[in-house]
Amino acid sequence: MFALGIDPGVSRCGYGLVARDASGYHPVVAGVITTPPADPLPGRLATILRELTELIAEHRPEVVVVERVFFQTNVRTAMSVGQASGLALAAAATAGCEIVQYTANEVKASVAGYGAASKEQMQRMVQALLSLPTLPKPPDVADALALALCHLAVAPRLARIAKAGGAR
Amino acid sequence: MFALGIDPGVSRCGYGLVARDASGYHPVVAGVITTPPADPLPGRLATILRELTELIAEHRPEVVVVERVFFQTNVRTAMSVGQASGLALAAAATAGCEIVQYTANEVKASVAGYGAASKEQMQRMVQALLSLPTLPKPPDVADALALALCHLAVAPRLARIAKAGGAR
Repeated sequence: MFALGIDPGVSRCGYGLVARDASGYHPVVAGVITTPPADPLPGRLATILRELTELIAEHRPEVVVVERVFFQTNVRTAMSVGQASGLALAAAATAGCEIVQYTANEVKASVAGYGAASKEQMQRMVQALLSLPTLPKPPDVADALALALCHLAVAPRLARIAKAGGAR
Repeated sequence: MFALGIDPGVSRCGYGLVARDASGYHPVVAGVITTPPADPLPGRLATILRELTELIAEHRPEVVVVERVFFQTNVRTAMSVGQASGLALAAAATAGCEIVQYTANEVKASVAGYGAASKEQMQRMVQALLSLPTLPKPPDVADALALALCHLAVAPRLARIAKAGGAR
């Protein structure tokens, strides 16, 4: 099973594709789409949409996992994160992928064992689960890989629950 | 000159294309893209992106005018408005259009003469400026047409200011 995690953002949009088989989790590709903060916003958003669309077309993930974002104190960041998440969701739906969303806390709870894990703890957990030689950097890449890992860990459990419910 | 106004939203995304010539302003096309609130969000965002992309490809506006949105009290609406505005900006930039943004208050001040005009006053001003036989409805359509009118009224002034500045 292939899952593509996307950590939405306009200046930095992290992505990480993870495969799961009988031997465990394997990183396929991961990186960050960056756009220059000095450039006009519309062109930056068009770049993110185009690069995410190409990424999905090239790797054809079965599931795209996008962080579910909420508004916090920094409304400037919240707006651009909202815009980038809209592009990620639209690109994945246009490609016909299954789409799931988890909050940052759900991802931390699933991958690191508790919802208040620090950025560095998340990077170390992702490194360990994927047997990476170095820490995944920047944190946006670790967050994207963690989204994919969260779904790959949670999905079989959800499937078992659905099956158990159906057998009643 | 052709300007396409877009009032971003996920449940209702208003659009209105206005032409200006020596005789005044003329409505070309206006309407609302609606998506069912009960449907999954990613598919709704994909629909909005596709319909806006088709609209821009069909009418080839010189300028796309997108409302500049801020976060207010209702964070649920703010998130979806942010996501829809991201799609509108990306679609227009992908098509190579010039893009301008005005706040709702700037549009009201430009079209109705003051920044605190009511929805109904805006509808009546848009009806009068475009010689429409009936009030433009729903308000999303009037808002989109008002965005286009705002730019068509403001743009020549900005051009004169730029020219005067350049001639110094």
